[in-house]
This record gives sequence, structure tokens and C-alpha cells, in this order.
Amino acid sequence: MKPGNGNGTPKNFDELIERATPWLSGEGPQAGMVLSTRMRLARNLQSVPFTHRARDEQLQGVLMSVVAAAERAPGFQNGLLLKMNDIGTLERQILVERHLVSHELGDGTRPRGLLAGADERLSLMINEEDHLRLQAMAPGFQLAESWAVADAADDELDEALDFAFSDETGYLTSCPTNAGTGLRASVLVHLPALVLMDEIPKVLKGISQVGLNVRGLYGEHSEVMGNLFQISNQTTLGVSERDSIESLERVVRQILEHEERARERMMRDARVQIEDKVWRAYGTLRYCRSIQAREVINLCSAVRLGVALGMSGLCPLPVMSGLLVLTQPAHLQRYAGRELTPAERNVYRAQRVREQLAAAGRDADS
Amino acid sequence: MKPGNGNGTPKNFDELIERATPWLSGEGPQAGMVLSTRMRLARNLQSVPFTHRARDEQLQGVLMSVVAAAERAPGFQNGLLLKMNDIGTLERQILVERHLVSHELGDGTRPRGLLAGADERLSLMINEEDHLRLQAMAPGFQLAESWAVADAADDELDEALDFAFSDETGYLTSCPTNAGTGLRASVLVHLPALVLMDEIPKVLKGISQVGLNVRGLYGEHSEVMGNLFQISNQTTLGVSERDSIESLERVVRQILEHEERARERMMRDARVQIEDKVWRAYGTLRYCRSIQAREVINLCSAVRLGVALGMSGLCPLPVMSGLLVLTQPAHLQRYAGRELTPAERNVYRAQRVREQLAAAGRDADS
Repeated sequence: MKPGNGNGTPKNFDELIERATPWLSGEGPQAGMVLSTRMRLARNLQSVPFTHRARDEQLQGVLMSVVAAAERAPGFQNGLLLKMNDIGTLERQILVERHLVSHELGDGTRPRGLLAGADERLSLMINEEDHLRLQAMAPGFQLAESWAVADAADDELDEALDFAFSDETGYLTSCPTNAGTGLRASVLVHLPALVLMDEIPKVLKGISQVGLNVRGLYGEHSEVMGNLFQISNQTTLGVSERDSIESLERVVRQILEHEERARERMMRDARVQIEDKVWRAYGTLRYCRSIQAREVINLCSAVRLGVALGMSGLCPLPVMSGLLVLTQPAHLQRYAGRELTPAERNVYRAQRVREQLAAAGRDADS
Repeated sequence: MKPGNGNGTPKNFDELIERATPWLSGEGPQAGMVLSTRMRLARNLQSVPFTHRARDEQLQGVLMSVVAAAERAPGFQNGLLLKMNDIGTLERQILVERHLVSHELGDGTRPRGLLAGADERLSLMINEEDHLRLQAMAPGFQLAESWAVADAADDELDEALDFAFSDETGYLTSCPTNAGTGLRASVLVHLPALVLMDEIPKVLKGISQVGLNVRGLYGEHSEVMGNLFQISNQTTLGVSERDSIESLERVVRQILEHEERARERMMRDARVQIEDKVWRAYGTLRYCRSIQAREVINLCSAVRLGVALGMSGLCPLPVMSGLLVLTQPAHLQRYAGRELTPAERNVYRAQRVREQLAAAGRDADS
């Protein structure tokens, strides 16, 4: 866990947050419709009470044990350890915006930590709702690959740690909804055509009927913005990880086919309106002088659709994906180097967006 | 009236309409708030019934007499004569869009004509509501100058023509609201700040209380769009031309001062919102793929305000003024070389707007 020097490994917090989030690189399989894939495994240590019932010195012990175990785990080599009470509120908020820590971990004053592996694709929240929350993230639609990464890291940690496990239930977790596999596999999909064609209510109903879950970009209770939907498995008890992932994969593939067909129909029946909507969104992002995060996300949705539909001259997907995180409040304030009022943030956000789009335009020209 | 070869004189109809309208050049005094100034004089021949009561052969006689008189008038040298039944509906509509002929003249199958002087700044409608409608147009706020041009041309024509005139009334006109001076002096002003600050109702009320008239961009009954107001004298009977013009000048100066102060207040209290509104309008014009004429006018209003307020990097005023006319339906169809459905027009209009703005951007860069 020392400052690393491996490929693309952040040496410190500053370096970590200067970069675009690798799991939102805008690349990967099906990048035109799938932004990212995430695997999360909840684990707890056998010998310690769950986080919310444990004393601080017990959690300190958990933190030390987990860090020691991770030091021997190949997946965490050259990683970065951040203790939540060593860093400020703004920094914690930045980690939340990067989906590296949860809101609960973000507010923490207790002995909590984050271990970020190389590339942020593998990370470990320590002493959040559960003692361990292992997370593997990848750009695009990569359920099998992400599972392989998460599973391998879990095995590595398991060699040094004694996880709370019962033969009957499986892994024991702080909240019963995670007990069993402790797995939450999720895919962040972009479904603008299904939304525009008003077919999304049917699709969402279908998703919940097969026991899956839908949320917005920023986790539980978060509102759906920018036509971005996080689809994840609901059930962790009495099913295998493989079954959960396969079922999610099957349903997401069906939804992507629906979206694909809706996009084709839309372009056949309303090409001009769609092109106009996409390019006006681009024009607004390109020239606005004040803008809220929510509007950036919604306009990026339109531009992203245009790029996916092959309209040339727009911004590359990586830039659009990057904006989703870079224009969040804590990131903005970090870049500005000071606290900003909401009104100042809107102005600075607009400036950042314009700069990113102008730079992308210059790259495209050169 | 032969094909001319003077400075800036259109040799034929094609050449006339390929050019931007000179009176909408975006230049002239107070160009940041005043688009153009117009003088119109209504005259009728003593010996012929008013147009709507005259027989076609009588109107033919009027046409010939007026053209003969204009041939000897210096103001009409190198002018262009267009007979309304020699040109098609689209061409007539183009002349309406350029404010060279009125709607009534535009639909004409009777012996009607337009004499356009060099630069379109002086023109003469023949056998419209009145036998002669002399018109002098200039960019910016130029009441005295426009009056001098119109008055001189009127004197020149008066030498060869016998105008219907009574010592009691003054010039006799088809509609009594024009009798007396036959003068309609008008100024096309841009009052976005008074509209945004919600002060325009008070201003409009004041205008009508002092006996002036307010209309939209396209004459009587036309709706106000793009915060553009045509302010003109109402009274023609029992007042001198000088008094009418001085009174109009005085009131318009007051309104411009109000607008100026409203712009200052607006920039002091809401600079970011105004800049954002201006630049988003520019972004929409720069990238739209389908747009209606009304929206072009409204967005141009915002951009025009930005230019007037000194925001750099926007389009020059001449381009913004030119768009007002170039994006009207008949102009568009003429450029396209064929009839266009309203939906096709919206697409083609967007293309023309983008081209104009991109060209202006290149000019600014070079």
C-alpha cells in the first residue's frame, strides 16, 4: 500500500483525482449503450461485530487486518490507502462522486478507509455498512470480466481473513438484503430512445418482475437523470453468484436490444428532430455560461446518443462520460482550489464544460 | 431604369436578392439599439381615381407616367423596375420580406410595380393602396437623413407628376389616415432589456399616449418578435412633416435612454444570467438542425443584445441583421432553388444559419 509506481497507479490522492475515472472511460464493449459494469461483494470478519455495533478500536483492528491482507493480495499491489478521517470533507465527497466510496463512508468520522487498486477498477471500502465492500468496476458491458476480477480479489483476501459465513445462509451481512452471496452486480445503461419513445415504463416494470432492481446514476434513492439507469440484481440469498450474473446479463441484453430497435425506429421516423435535439444540446454545452450538474447530465445524454448514432463532429464518448463526474460539485471545487457557492459552481462548471468540449474539438481537428 | 452599372446597383432581380438588405446592414448610428429608419410618403395622381377604384388601363397609365418621371429623377438613376405581374409569387414574396413592397402589392395581379433605387435605400411602390408609395430606408437611427432622401425624391417626382393635393388637407390619399403629409416615419428598435425587465408595457402605453404607433417587424398587425418594435408617427393631418419627425425623434431618444439604463441595470444585477442566455442562444443558432423563422428572430435578439453589450466572440451585428431577412420563407426557397415544405424549410434554414455563423466565425479568426 505504499505510494506505487506501477502502470497507471495513482501515487497519491492528488494524482488519483486529477485523472478521469477509468471505469467511466467511455470505452469497453457496447459503449454506445453501456457506460460501466460494477461488482460489489459485502464481507464481514467473523470475530468482530458488524460496523454499526462495533467499537472504534474494533473497527481500527478491522482496518489493520484488511490492509495487511490486501498487502499480500496481488489485485491490490500498488494500491492507494486513504483513511477517511485523514482527509477532508471535500476529498471524501470527491470519492463519493467517483463511486469509490458510498455516501455512508463519505461522512465518516469512524476508523474507515478506502483501498483503491491500480486504475480504480478494484477498490475496497473498509468499515462501511459491512466490514469489507469489495468493488470491481469496468467501462462498458463486462459482467464476466468484472466478476473474475472481484472473485479473484475476494479469494486473495479470504486467504488472510476469516469471513463471517454460515453454510446455511452464505456470507453474513449487516443488512439481511445482502446476505448469501453479498453480491450486487450492476450495469449502468443509457436508454434515451426507450425514454423518448415512452417505452421505458414497460421496460422498468419488466425488470422488477424478474427480480432485478433499477436506480439512477448515484445509487440507492438517486433520481434517474440523463436517461441513465443502473440495473442490478436484487436477490443474494439462495442463488449462486453465477446465476445472479447470468440472469442480469440476459435481461440487460434484452433491454439493449429493445433500445437498439427503438433507436432505429426513432432515426427512421424522426431523424431531423433527433439530430436537432442532439446538436442543440451540444451547442448549449459548448457555449453556456452557467449550468447545473443535472442539466449537464441531461445534455450529455443527448450528445452521447448522437455519438452512438454515428453523428460526426460531436464530442468523443470518453469526454462525455468524463463530464458526468468532473462536473460534480466536489470535483469542481477541488479544481477551483477553493469552496464555491452554488452560483459560482454553475459558472465554473460551464467554463469547465466549454474547455473540455473545445479541447475535444481541437483534438478532432488536428 | 435600364440595367444599371452604378455603384452597388442591382443589375437585375437575381442580383438584387442575392445581396443582404442594405437598410438592414447592422450599421448606422445607434446600431446597438436601432436596426433601421424608414420614411414612407403616400402620393396619388390628380387625374386618376385611387388604385382600388381605377381600371387596369388607368393604372397602366399611372405606372408609365411614374416610371417616366423617375427616369428624370436623380434619386432613381440606375434603379431597377420590377412589374408585379412579370415576376412570380415567390419573387413578390421576397420583395415583401425585404420590406420593398407591402403585402397588398405582393399579391397583385393588377398593373403594379416596384422601382428599387440603388442600394434599395430608396424605392417606389406603384399602384399599391396609393398610386405612389415612396420609401427611404437607412440602417440605424437616421431620421433627418432619411427624410432628406425621401423629400428630395418627392420633389424630383413632383416636377413631372401632378399629385392630388388640396390646400386645406394636404396630400390626398386612398385611406384618410394617411391624408395630409402622407408621411409614415418609423424606426425599428431593439428593446430586449425593457422586455426582460418587464418595463415594456409602461413604455408602450407612453408611446400611444403621445400619438405614436407601435408594430412588429413585419408591419401592421404583425406580432412583436425578437423584442423588435417599429415605432412610427400616427398623425398625418394638420401637422408638418418636420413636427412629425421631431416628435418621433424625441420619443425614440427617450425610449433608447430607458433601454440603455435597463441594460446597465440588467448587467449590474444579473450579468451571469444575461451572458448565459446570450451564449446559449448563439450555441443554438450555431448548431441547430431544424429551426423556425420565429425562433431565429428570437435567438438573434439575444445574440444582438450580447454584441451590443460588448461580449466578444459573438457574431457581428450585420450578420445578425441579415439573418432576419435571409431566413424568411421566400428567401430560403429562392436560395434552395425550389419550393420547400415547412419542414424542409426548417432544416434548410438551420443549415443557412449555421453557415452564416460559421463564416462569421472564420472571418473573426482570420
